[in-house]
Amino acid sequence: MAATYGFKACRKIRGAQIRGLLEAKEFFLFDCDGVLWHGEKAVAGAAQVVNSLMRQGKNVVFVTNNSTRPRDKYVHKFYRLGFTAVALEHIFSSSYCSALYLRDVAKLRGQVFVVGCDGLRDELREAGIPCVEEADEPDATIYDCALAADVKAVLVGHDDKLTFLKLAKASCYLKDPNCLFLATDNDPWHPLSSGRILPGSGSLMAALEVASGRKATVIGKPNRYMFECISSQFPGMDPAQCLMVGDRLETDMLFGSNCGLDTMLTLTGVSQMEEAHQYENSEEYQSLVPDYVVDTIADLLSAFE
Amino acid sequence: MAATYGFKACRKIRGAQIRGLLEAKEFFLFDCDGVLWHGEKAVAGAAQVVNSLMRQGKNVVFVTNNSTRPRDKYVHKFYRLGFTAVALEHIFSSSYCSALYLRDVAKLRGQVFVVGCDGLRDELREAGIPCVEEADEPDATIYDCALAADVKAVLVGHDDKLTFLKLAKASCYLKDPNCLFLATDNDPWHPLSSGRILPGSGSLMAALEVASGRKATVIGKPNRYMFECISSQFPGMDPAQCLMVGDRLETDMLFGSNCGLDTMLTLTGVSQMEEAHQYENSEEYQSLVPDYVVDTIADLLSAFE
Repeated sequence: MAATYGFKACRKIRGAQIRGLLEAKEFFLFDCDGVLWHGEKAVAGAAQVVNSLMRQGKNVVFVTNNSTRPRDKYVHKFYRLGFTAVALEHIFSSSYCSALYLRDVAKLRGQVFVVGCDGLRDELREAGIPCVEEADEPDATIYDCALAADVKAVLVGHDDKLTFLKLAKASCYLKDPNCLFLATDNDPWHPLSSGRILPGSGSLMAALEVASGRKATVIGKPNRYMFECISSQFPGMDPAQCLMVGDRLETDMLFGSNCGLDTMLTLTGVSQMEEAHQYENSEEYQSLVPDYVVDTIADLLSAFE
Repeated sequence: MAATYGFKACRKIRGAQIRGLLEAKEFFLFDCDGVLWHGEKAVAGAAQVVNSLMRQGKNVVFVTNNSTRPRDKYVHKFYRLGFTAVALEHIFSSSYCSALYLRDVAKLRGQVFVVGCDGLRDELREAGIPCVEEADEPDATIYDCALAADVKAVLVGHDDKLTFLKLAKASCYLKDPNCLFLATDNDPWHPLSSGRILPGSGSLMAALEVASGRKATVIGKPNRYMFECISSQFPGMDPAQCLMVGDRLETDMLFGSNCGLDTMLTLTGVSQMEEAHQYENSEEYQSLVPDYVVDTIADLLSAFE
């Protein structure tokens, strides 16, 4: 058995501890799905917490691997669900950060072939990144379809309209070693309220990795790039003053650890307490263990009473 | 550097060596795509070689990871391309062996959800295995589609009509730990004559493995199960008397090695000589190195002159 000295013990925090923590931190990074809402239903109390933090002058940003809608649509959703002070500049989605990466890091010259939703293409175009138009005949196949000549990146995200032809086209583009291979995120699946599951970007990315024999660069959590996007837009941001709040150990908590942030797990989403406890005594998985746990983000309300 | 003593050196064989090898072997296992034909075009001389071996009373079987057509369609294809003596019992496709596995090993009670071509479903039904009918409305989604209650296995193969809904349904069925997870094969991609590539079963399997968090049981090469199917139908078959002929190191040569067969690489398909040479001095990859290499299966014709 490994000695447990120095290992994190994840415990729920309450009352005065919560108040102390919120006072100590200046930057709050929130995951969205499973933390602030489930689909179109806000988590009870979530909007009050976010509104209160913003009213107190704290910096609040939203860090989501969900690539299905552009930021302006997120602003509408926030507003609709009661988060009335959220603006474009608070939102760091994996689609927005993918657009920043293509524009500012890769300095792309050419088009992007997107395996993803229309919202992802909209976000890229908003940043001036041209995307290949999807306009195949219904009976087109990889044997006879057109391929664009100037594709310099394949970007894979969540795509509920995935077809074999899209997968095949992406694989063909990736034969060119000069064509970048990016994924908005590596989420394996997403829970639906019905108990069903939805394959995530990580699932489609794996299909393309096998078909192309290449590895994708992952933009989203748990990788650091989204934090770099945030800190470049909030100069002077100090990781020690940040709290990352999320519902998934292997994305949100690991992202926080990778970026040197304190982490808080909320139990309204994917990961549950048992899972966190399993990692507690493992040296290898320490970075998945949250520093703090709450049942729901509404537990933070007590700090404002 | 590792000592090369005892390592295989893959060299092309010619003339008398070929004649000696063919005389010494009683069973010939041929891969099809890239060895006997490319699509609808036979490799020159391939049919003569196969016909001559059969005429000499050698046992010849065909071992293909291609799951897209049932065996009776293969018989027609063989005949069409000049392999006039090939019958149903010579054909061991990954779809046929998947059907045998479900019927005889898993002894399946319930339906199979197939991510694959109609030919795979036809082969399963031929063996008495019921498959879920694919009859979704064009605009059905995983949020509202019907799921069958008695699915006890998900089988993934090559599927050029893959949709996100199929992937999502399969992921939902796999949530049940009593639902088997099988793949016809693990081929990552297939070359097209145009230079384009086709994602293979291995690509779709990877997507499902990530979405389900499970590992598939792979029926096809390089795993041993197809050899077990063959030897159960040819009692007394001795691996030492077999030659496996194929075009892909990581499927055909590895399959031969895994089953204790001598292996022959033909250079009319995926793997080329350079790749085989790369593995020659590696202890780890010895099982990928062919015992014999020919430019084309037509090189075997010399043995019959």
